[in-house]
Amino acid sequence: MGKDEVKVLGMWASPFCMRVKIALAEKGVTYEEILENDLFGEKSALLLKSNPVHKQVPVLLHGDKPVVESTNIITYIDEVWPSPPLLPACAYERSRARFWADFIDRKVFSAGRGIWMANGEEQVESSKTEFLDILIYLDGTLGDKDYFTGDTFGLVDILLIGVTSWFCVFEKYGNFKVADHYPKLGAWMERCYARQSVLDAQIDSNNLFDLVSMIRQTNGLQ
Amino acid sequence: MGKDEVKVLGMWASPFCMRVKIALAEKGVTYEEILENDLFGEKSALLLKSNPVHKQVPVLLHGDKPVVESTNIITYIDEVWPSPPLLPACAYERSRARFWADFIDRKVFSAGRGIWMANGEEQVESSKTEFLDILIYLDGTLGDKDYFTGDTFGLVDILLIGVTSWFCVFEKYGNFKVADHYPKLGAWMERCYARQSVLDAQIDSNNLFDLVSMIRQTNGLQ
Repeated sequence: MGKDEVKVLGMWASPFCMRVKIALAEKGVTYEEILENDLFGEKSALLLKSNPVHKQVPVLLHGDKPVVESTNIITYIDEVWPSPPLLPACAYERSRARFWADFIDRKVFSAGRGIWMANGEEQVESSKTEFLDILIYLDGTLGDKDYFTGDTFGLVDILLIGVTSWFCVFEKYGNFKVADHYPKLGAWMERCYARQSVLDAQIDSNNLFDLVSMIRQTNGLQ
Repeated sequence: MGKDEVKVLGMWASPFCMRVKIALAEKGVTYEEILENDLFGEKSALLLKSNPVHKQVPVLLHGDKPVVESTNIITYIDEVWPSPPLLPACAYERSRARFWADFIDRKVFSAGRGIWMANGEEQVESSKTEFLDILIYLDGTLGDKDYFTGDTFGLVDILLIGVTSWFCVFEKYGNFKVADHYPKLGAWMERCYARQSVLDAQIDSNNLFDLVSMIRQTNGLQ
């Protein structure tokens, strides 16, 4: 493999892989995508060798060097291919971006999982409340800006827009619309989805519904 | 408050505050420490204003600007006061350091808490196994190096050495010694504790034992 070749080990349904694809597209980096079979299949030898601790996609292979964990991968991409920058130039603004990056990583996807893996109406409602309470903070910090760190699309936008690929699932099982509760977040999503990098990386919602339905059945949920 | 004045909102028992104090000492930055009353007291107005989302110490106040979350604070410190650097110069090595930083933040302290908050011998043993299984990875990546990223004390060392301030508690309640299982980690701890920055920031173990005993009682554990 060439020293500067870029490959991404991915999985079609992963919001974390979607993030990496968006970041590479924003930087104009060409790469080869290698898809793992599916959520339940055996993990490939290349994945196990590249990410022996977590054994998860996404993995970025830069030459023969593996970089893992989506937020870490995007930070690496931003350092190796600096233009256009995904983080603000000012150290304080960068610390704010990293704060929200961490907030999103710890909370949004796992809270959404509580909705679609709920067992019964009561669990759905409490998970939905928890999820919407998390989004209050993101709606607040976005405010009237076009993107999370100001005028330009950056790290925080990429991290959250990746996770929004699963919002259709959260909304279906929770019977709500994020945009009805948070119109500013709704407009921000539309703005992001107007970008070619996001459009090209998006995940098919019908396939997600089928996948989620199968996961629920496997776990004995109706 | 002066534009460049540095203050740290801290709490004496916090391994995360200890990290920030070590980083500032390594950089030779003078600061004022403002201690929150205790774990159970009311949080100060300054803390609530500075960290409205998580409402937790540590907070670094740089002039009137708050930076929160210890790993994020140390990254900020490294960017604002670049010498001596706490992260490697090479982007790939930096991505490795950030990977282990995240691994430590997600796993080590919470696994240790499982030991000292255990209810009964069986829980102690399973928590201890989980904790030691996490350290296998850290011992492996440290290997025969002096510090986690090579010859110089850096971000990963600071993050882990902060958490080792609580190892005395984990060891007491789990009836084991980390250094017996992982001599390389044991030698690394001694190496770190020979540094003035670490010595000056260390947490009194007898006070920790009293605190933990009180927390267990409050939670109905003997």
